[in-house]
Amino acid sequence: MRIQGLIAATFSTFNEDGSLDLSLVPGLVDKLISEGVQGVFICGTNGEGPNLTIEERMTIAEAYVKAVNKRCLVLVHVGHPSIAEARKLAVHAKKIGADAISAVAAFYFKPASVNNLVDCMAEIAAAAPDMPFYYYHIPVITGMGIDMLEFLRLAEGKIPNLAGIKYTAATLHEYQACLNYKNGRFDILYGYDELLLPALAVGAQAAIGSTYTFAAPLYLKVMAYFREGKIAEAQQLQLHAINMIRCLSRYSPIPTQKTIMKLMGMDLGPCRLPLVSLSAQQEQEISHYLQEIKFAEVLKEVVSNAQ
Amino acid sequence: MRIQGLIAATFSTFNEDGSLDLSLVPGLVDKLISEGVQGVFICGTNGEGPNLTIEERMTIAEAYVKAVNKRCLVLVHVGHPSIAEARKLAVHAKKIGADAISAVAAFYFKPASVNNLVDCMAEIAAAAPDMPFYYYHIPVITGMGIDMLEFLRLAEGKIPNLAGIKYTAATLHEYQACLNYKNGRFDILYGYDELLLPALAVGAQAAIGSTYTFAAPLYLKVMAYFREGKIAEAQQLQLHAINMIRCLSRYSPIPTQKTIMKLMGMDLGPCRLPLVSLSAQQEQEISHYLQEIKFAEVLKEVVSNAQ
Amino acid sequence: MRIQGLIAATFSTFNEDGSLDLSLVPGLVDKLISEGVQGVFICGTNGEGPNLTIEERMTIAEAYVKAVNKRCLVLVHVGHPSIAEARKLAVHAKKIGADAISAVAAFYFKPASVNNLVDCMAEIAAAAPDMPFYYYHIPVITGMGIDMLEFLRLAEGKIPNLAGIKYTAATLHEYQACLNYKNGRFDILYGYDELLLPALAVGAQAAIGSTYTFAAPLYLKVMAYFREGKIAEAQQLQLHAINMIRCLSRYSPIPTQKTIMKLMGMDLGPCRLPLVSLSAQQEQEISHYLQEIKFAEVLKEVVSNAQ
Amino acid sequence: MRIQGLIAATFSTFNEDGSLDLSLVPGLVDKLISEGVQGVFICGTNGEGPNLTIEERMTIAEAYVKAVNKRCLVLVHVGHPSIAEARKLAVHAKKIGADAISAVAAFYFKPASVNNLVDCMAEIAAAAPDMPFYYYHIPVITGMGIDMLEFLRLAEGKIPNLAGIKYTAATLHEYQACLNYKNGRFDILYGYDELLLPALAVGAQAAIGSTYTFAAPLYLKVMAYFREGKIAEAQQLQLHAINMIRCLSRYSPIPTQKTIMKLMGMDLGPCRLPLVSLSAQQEQEISHYLQEIKFAEVLKEVVSNAQ
Repeated sequence: MRIQGLIAATFSTFNEDGSLDLSLVPGLVDKLISEGVQGVFICGTNGEGPNLTIEERMTIAEAYVKAVNKRCLVLVHVGHPSIAEARKLAVHAKKIGADAISAVAAFYFKPASVNNLVDCMAEIAAAAPDMPFYYYHIPVITGMGIDMLEFLRLAEGKIPNLAGIKYTAATLHEYQACLNYKNGRFDILYGYDELLLPALAVGAQAAIGSTYTFAAPLYLKVMAYFREGKIAEAQQLQLHAINMIRCLSRYSPIPTQKTIMKLMGMDLGPCRLPLVSLSAQQEQEISHYLQEIKFAEVLKEVVSNAQ
Repeated sequence: MRIQGLIAATFSTFNEDGSLDLSLVPGLVDKLISEGVQGVFICGTNGEGPNLTIEERMTIAEAYVKAVNKRCLVLVHVGHPSIAEARKLAVHAKKIGADAISAVAAFYFKPASVNNLVDCMAEIAAAAPDMPFYYYHIPVITGMGIDMLEFLRLAEGKIPNLAGIKYTAATLHEYQACLNYKNGRFDILYGYDELLLPALAVGAQAAIGSTYTFAAPLYLKVMAYFREGKIAEAQQLQLHAINMIRCLSRYSPIPTQKTIMKLMGMDLGPCRLPLVSLSAQQEQEISHYLQEIKFAEVLKEVVSNAQ
Repeated sequence: MRIQGLIAATFSTFNEDGSLDLSLVPGLVDKLISEGVQGVFICGTNGEGPNLTIEERMTIAEAYVKAVNKRCLVLVHVGHPSIAEARKLAVHAKKIGADAISAVAAFYFKPASVNNLVDCMAEIAAAAPDMPFYYYHIPVITGMGIDMLEFLRLAEGKIPNLAGIKYTAATLHEYQACLNYKNGRFDILYGYDELLLPALAVGAQAAIGSTYTFAAPLYLKVMAYFREGKIAEAQQLQLHAINMIRCLSRYSPIPTQKTIMKLMGMDLGPCRLPLVSLSAQQEQEISHYLQEIKFAEVLKEVVSNAQ
Repeated sequence: MRIQGLIAATFSTFNEDGSLDLSLVPGLVDKLISEGVQGVFICGTNGEGPNLTIEERMTIAEAYVKAVNKRCLVLVHVGHPSIAEARKLAVHAKKIGADAISAVAAFYFKPASVNNLVDCMAEIAAAAPDMPFYYYHIPVITGMGIDMLEFLRLAEGKIPNLAGIKYTAATLHEYQACLNYKNGRFDILYGYDELLLPALAVGAQAAIGSTYTFAAPLYLKVMAYFREGKIAEAQQLQLHAINMIRCLSRYSPIPTQKTIMKLMGMDLGPCRLPLVSLSAQQEQEISHYLQEIKFAEVLKEVVSNAQ
């Protein structure tokens, strides 16, 4: 498996009472495909996978697979502190026709070494041996800051269906080394949207991220400029993305992104505890901030130029 | 609810292939009761709760409740990254007749403030409103190093069934402040076995710990000496416990404790990944170390003196 | 060297412009001795050693040695990121007639192993080979959370003048193990005032702390109660100390302690950046808080009962 | 001040007994200038500044200023836990004719906020008000992971001679935001050699790093390729640099770099504790590793092509 372009780390959609609202999925999927994403990543961090029950994770994955209807890739995140639960999710992802699975490291008992991590991932990947498996590296949340090049070295013999890594860390030198491991044997997807341009500079071909859910055209333009050698133009748009992303940490990143979706006309419902939806006043502040940096304007301009 | 004495944070029991072996539970429970523990804590850290599926957690909790048969307290750990799953476990614990529930903070998305943590715990506790609820404070694993006195202040109005805290941290000054909050309104169970004596010195009445599963008589003697004002004798036995506990971190604490159980004649099966059972050679090293510090001898002596 | 009782980790004294004001030292020393401390610890954390120049550290150490005039012990902290500077301070401490030296681990380049730490400390200790040397263990600041029992094992052969450890960490099990290493070969001074009672319970004979500068009689009474087996009374006074210490982290611990000294009638001047003296309003808040918990009253009562 | 190109974070040079050996400085400086560096950074991390006494830091700075003799820039690192000592170093740097000064945050008492950090840096910068001042951001060592954009906002009004930041962190999105703050008002030097190419992609004009001391031509070629739009070629050379840098963390980065200098024919002496020079066997391993990745060969090729 070799992905090109952008994968949107999409949201789980809720009713006001916190129950799943699957009716919102098809519209969201259509929007994403129309904006040019190559795939969706389901029940990851942005999709609040760890806040859902196993049954809910399966339900929402099915809804996405059905809505996508083979128009783009569907990657399902199956990571869980219990490997047994993760395996159930992997089997289910296969059954419903997803294209690939991915898992974070266990996050209560943390793997004690690269080898231990590989053994854990091998057990999960083996539950769906025909599906491409991506290790989801996100040390800022899991605390597993291990060397990914070492991971590839140890994993390639133990995980036959290892496709690559969803690499969510700022250490682009390690990312570049992984991209080039055995002449690019593995597919290393980049995971920090605010670092897309420098990731392209070291060779990234694909990226997964949450802001690709509402700003994909911006980033696709960054990629286009970069391909055309227009570095200054790419820098300017990337800086615009950075300015937008800076507001995500003002309160809480995922609820803030749901607020942005809502401000853009697509209300996907609240978040689940421990995540807390923004208050009306906080929403207003985000709205003002985005106006200040002319977020919608620039996005619209990029889109209209693209047509 | 006000607990006195020791609660054993007991193990989950497995067949060699990693599936649950419930046949081992009754014998383990009988041993624990005969050694004087006042209760068992099920599916906590030592019980590998986070490594099990929801169904397995329920199954093992039932097996313990049945084996205990009201001869001692049964506390069930229901903590989970998904509050919805935790609530299912809480409802089940009530249904099977457990005595209390307890939960760690969510550990993928971590609560961002004391208030946020209280809101999360309130939602879990409300699923079994008639059961005493203990917050399980274990910052070394969850990374949630927040002030527990502040937690009590904010939680007492929001969690009607808050019984207290399973306090697993070395900060005994904060522990002492919690014990004395509103003249001892809450039941604060101490969670580091190696610090039992100093915890008694600041007022601890009860403790939950993993080594109470195989060395309860030792600690009960520490408590007896302390009550009798025999501080030097209490120190000597506590030091013995510390020496024993020092070997737990040589490899991995939970698998090492299962090895100790096995060396003492009770094989409870392997651990689940990411935990890894000790190798035969590592088992031998642990065995030698325990012989060196005369662990079995001292334990036997304490037991025979107690009769 | 074997210390009994309390050592006050005393302050450096400044003029309003931030220059040293040595005229305040004799009065402070007289007060400390009259309140029963057995020694003073100079230029440590509370003494802002790392904020001073080498020359200033020497000057203030001399002022203390002179003011003490052999009426109690003088321990000089010589820790520094540069071992060469630390050695100069050690030589000077010897020259002026201090009783012992102590050093934290280097804190820019941090020792990479216990062995490396021992080698660093050996080089410092060797600069004053006739003086007792105490390693100053304070992982919360230095980040050096290594096993102190292992340190003693490796250091005893390499540091002939190793007297012991100033142990500033909450891990009382490790502290107890160090106290008992080779039947108490080393002098392990306890460093967290809020944990004095539980430290006594595991065998502490001496403690160094900042609040012994203004509340020594309180802690001496805790020690007396403990010796007499009056645990409940000791707990009550220790809890009072804990309540007082809780206000230290409201703003910044060292400036707050200088504020408390000032409120008690002894203005020792401001702190140096990065430490910032409390504002007038913050001082008032601390004053109110101390009144609320009846800090001065309890202290006075303890003192009058002692006479 | 606006720097273009590479600044070598150069070494301090020692005799076998650990005393300074200034005779090595002129040769090293000539080599660096001949290889195309635009300046040297003295007594920083790689220069072991924190391991030296104040007097030694002054001495070595003078030796470099004299050897450089205005042929390239000289930046002197004056950071110190004591602001008073840092100010002495700043005054001295001015006196000897250095071009700029730089300082890390205090690293015993760590600044508690951006504002507090700015106040500390303002006090240091004010000691040499006519010299450009660069804040040295290196959170991996100091633990000060604060937002540099916020730093610029608060510092620009309080530090009249603020020239910019030596930015040693992988967070290139923040780096890009700093570069673009007020249309590039400040000079933001990039500090991770292994990330030079992605830093260029977001707009870096200059970089300071330790491996520019022995591999500057490699990086200058990366810069040239990037300017010419030859991204694939730039990636290949940058990957080569990454492969070389991966060996630095095998033992200890600074001693390993001194070993590389020695292998390349320039023995600069040992390191000072807590840093430990490599053993003969470790040196051999580094040598083999560099041969394996053809480090010298590639470097030679780059140099010969450049002529």
